[in-house]
Amino acid sequence: MGWGDLGAFGEPSKETPNLDQMASEGMLFLDFYAANPLCSPSRAALLTGRLPVRNGFYTTNAHARNAYTPQDIVGGIPDSELLLPELLKKAGYINKIIGKWHLGHRPQFHPLKHGFDEWFGSPNCHFGPFDNRALPNIPVYRDREMIGRYYEDFKIDLKTGEANLTQIYLQEALDFISKQQASQQPFFLYWAIDATHAPVYASKQFLGTSQRGLYGDAVREIDDSVGKILKHLQKLGISKNTFVFFTSDNGAALISAPKQGGSNGRFLCGKQTTFEGGMREPAIAWWPGHIPAGGVSHQLGSVMDLFTTSLSLAGLQPPGDRQIDGIDLLPAILQGKLIDRPIFYYRGNEMMAVRVGLYKAHYWTWSNSWEEYSKGIDFCPGQNVSGVTTHTQEEHTTLPLLFHLGRDPGEKYPLSFASEEYQQAMERISVIVQQHKATMVPGVPQLNVCDKAVMNWSPPGCEKLGKCLKAPKSDPKKCFWPH
Amino acid sequence: MGWGDLGAFGEPSKETPNLDQMASEGMLFLDFYAANPLCSPSRAALLTGRLPVRNGFYTTNAHARNAYTPQDIVGGIPDSELLLPELLKKAGYINKIIGKWHLGHRPQFHPLKHGFDEWFGSPNCHFGPFDNRALPNIPVYRDREMIGRYYEDFKIDLKTGEANLTQIYLQEALDFISKQQASQQPFFLYWAIDATHAPVYASKQFLGTSQRGLYGDAVREIDDSVGKILKHLQKLGISKNTFVFFTSDNGAALISAPKQGGSNGRFLCGKQTTFEGGMREPAIAWWPGHIPAGGVSHQLGSVMDLFTTSLSLAGLQPPGDRQIDGIDLLPAILQGKLIDRPIFYYRGNEMMAVRVGLYKAHYWTWSNSWEEYSKGIDFCPGQNVSGVTTHTQEEHTTLPLLFHLGRDPGEKYPLSFASEEYQQAMERISVIVQQHKATMVPGVPQLNVCDKAVMNWSPPGCEKLGKCLKAPKSDPKKCFWPH
Repeated sequence: MGWGDLGAFGEPSKETPNLDQMASEGMLFLDFYAANPLCSPSRAALLTGRLPVRNGFYTTNAHARNAYTPQDIVGGIPDSELLLPELLKKAGYINKIIGKWHLGHRPQFHPLKHGFDEWFGSPNCHFGPFDNRALPNIPVYRDREMIGRYYEDFKIDLKTGEANLTQIYLQEALDFISKQQASQQPFFLYWAIDATHAPVYASKQFLGTSQRGLYGDAVREIDDSVGKILKHLQKLGISKNTFVFFTSDNGAALISAPKQGGSNGRFLCGKQTTFEGGMREPAIAWWPGHIPAGGVSHQLGSVMDLFTTSLSLAGLQPPGDRQIDGIDLLPAILQGKLIDRPIFYYRGNEMMAVRVGLYKAHYWTWSNSWEEYSKGIDFCPGQNVSGVTTHTQEEHTTLPLLFHLGRDPGEKYPLSFASEEYQQAMERISVIVQQHKATMVPGVPQLNVCDKAVMNWSPPGCEKLGKCLKAPKSDPKKCFWPH
Repeated sequence: MGWGDLGAFGEPSKETPNLDQMASEGMLFLDFYAANPLCSPSRAALLTGRLPVRNGFYTTNAHARNAYTPQDIVGGIPDSELLLPELLKKAGYINKIIGKWHLGHRPQFHPLKHGFDEWFGSPNCHFGPFDNRALPNIPVYRDREMIGRYYEDFKIDLKTGEANLTQIYLQEALDFISKQQASQQPFFLYWAIDATHAPVYASKQFLGTSQRGLYGDAVREIDDSVGKILKHLQKLGISKNTFVFFTSDNGAALISAPKQGGSNGRFLCGKQTTFEGGMREPAIAWWPGHIPAGGVSHQLGSVMDLFTTSLSLAGLQPPGDRQIDGIDLLPAILQGKLIDRPIFYYRGNEMMAVRVGLYKAHYWTWSNSWEEYSKGIDFCPGQNVSGVTTHTQEEHTTLPLLFHLGRDPGEKYPLSFASEEYQQAMERISVIVQQHKATMVPGVPQLNVCDKAVMNWSPPGCEKLGKCLKAPKSDPKKCFWPH
């Protein structure tokens, strides 16, 4: 989902009454960021509180390449990383993930090996293979074992866009919440739905209901589901004791537009890029009786902050033996404070840009290669800012491109290098970047090696279902990441 | 102002608490349009309920050119046009305009000759001449006589952007409302502020207060002033008897960005164009006790509807002897009805596009000429949609470019001509356009002739002030309208 996909964020169809109400009862974050312009690394960062370049969710196969976890990826979340649910366990929390995991599909990487008590969902994206029979369809797990596969047992009609997965995920969420409430146990629910990821899908009852087409149908179903989850918390009488945060893992994928692509509002470009459209996210915090209703925050936030903030809510400290990038947002949420902190925009192994206050400095600019662009792959459709949305990797490390995101949220007007404003802002930013780079210890890159043999041929539980497939011989290769 | 300039419409700085509150107490219109992508024609349409091509506020000097009323314009609002205040008089209304008139600056065109009882403001824009002494500065009038001139008596500091005009306009408004309330007379106030028009200005107390720079300062001052006007109505106990509508006369002028330019959200291009960014406007209706709080309407609306709606509120019928383009919005506002009606997008003498439901068909596309563009005049900065934001006037009358504004609000993806959707939509649209063209009787164009002799050399009242200047000899010429 993109920043501009909710009514509360100016989507002109205004079709998200539940999320808009969540915002009016809670707090809207206008300057909240994904940790990466791509799904897997952003999710790994959310659960570890650490930048992908630290937790290993990046590649060094080529410079500044987005990488993720397709089913031929060999790597996954390292055991050395401490995930939020692992830590929450110490405070007695029961942890469940519903939906897309995306931190590695091989058994050693599974959610239940990394602190989750329950899992319903899939390890990889539901895009491809599209039931082509030459490759294994993505499995759907309940806890440790697969219970079926996409397209075979969990239908997604690629023609109509019909799939009832969000309804299944919703029911799983409501059941889990009821169960925890009944047993009086604190819980952490990571509701990682994926209906707005291409191939976008919605249940029959939502198909054709949006002005925005199929993508809007999916957003409406998510909106409706969030409303039902919040009402469920209220009905059970635990809303004042439950912190809820809504956000997304990367900007809307404009390459899927118009039918399957969302909106990044007036921000530049989308998913895959380190422009605002690729990483600024809709974000709402909700906690009736604690968060003042109708609040708006300009706190620079990150999905990684949800790690630290959740620990804080559970009365826990973040691990002291490693660099944590997420900060505790509670002072911003509960007391309206503004905490001074930078946002780093990474693409693979490169820090492309940094935001400090209202200034954003681009040290590298790139949308994608001319080669890809000439094939019609366009991360910035209809947008073209000369020298900014470049199709070659442009280095600006000696003289970064500087934007003022208040006057110029669309990153169209770089400040003059000769201006006093540029000099003053860059003085401050340079110190922050130098310190960041000097203390950066990159993790072992997990997204370098691909091997068809590791695909979901025979996931745990496949025997019971008669769904085991024969894996080919191992043939590890460097993964190819085109952008 | 542009569609995206208010927090309620997704402006990421969210600095318009008063207008946002006005929206939450009233009704937000998401699909509301100016009658033209330029000021004068849009304002003439607002006050006559008729398209500029009917009321004469257009030019035939060249094809599809935007024209307005600079101070060398010979024409103005024809006596044959019936203006809203003229009609409201019949129901006992006292009418006042505060701010920019823009319907002709020669005495026969003045507000008090066309139904207004009071006027405080200027006949032309405050941009140029910038006190260059070779041309008369724009006069400021109280009622029938000038009381001073811009830059001389009403300061606008072009360097700092400081001017206290909005405060003066605010005080005029509050005083007028108090006076009418005291005398128990119904009133129509046309509060036509212009602080967000370049050169953008704000009072000292607002300078530097916005994240968005000077433009944001101006928006904040307008927002604050609207809040004060609404509170004044409430304090006087007449809010339940006063209908208030907030909107703008054209999209944000992106050529003035980033320092002096506003936001059209995710819509394409800006002022001067017939893309959504040029004509879709922020719009809020407010009438406590009558309009349901927090309402949102997708009614296709136009500033021309304010003419018909205002008459309806006053119990009057629109004139029956002429074509009126504005419709009565009260069923949409009070009963949430959706009235089926098209929106026509004109540029000068040409119908460039039409919106029917969620479809918009472009019969002509043009941003501006290559010649202008090469000089740096860009109405679509950072945006470029191939075959859409064209720099030559492109005719599509036989096969219009069709967009679905729900799935594609940014007008980036024309529908395939071969698609069934295109065929079906165009069938319906063609009938509407044919009927529109067949019954169109254009008015006498008022914006064809320019003459330096008609400038504000010696406005009424100049003698008393010693501010009369000597006019040059009359030398009428065709006005030159470059875009």
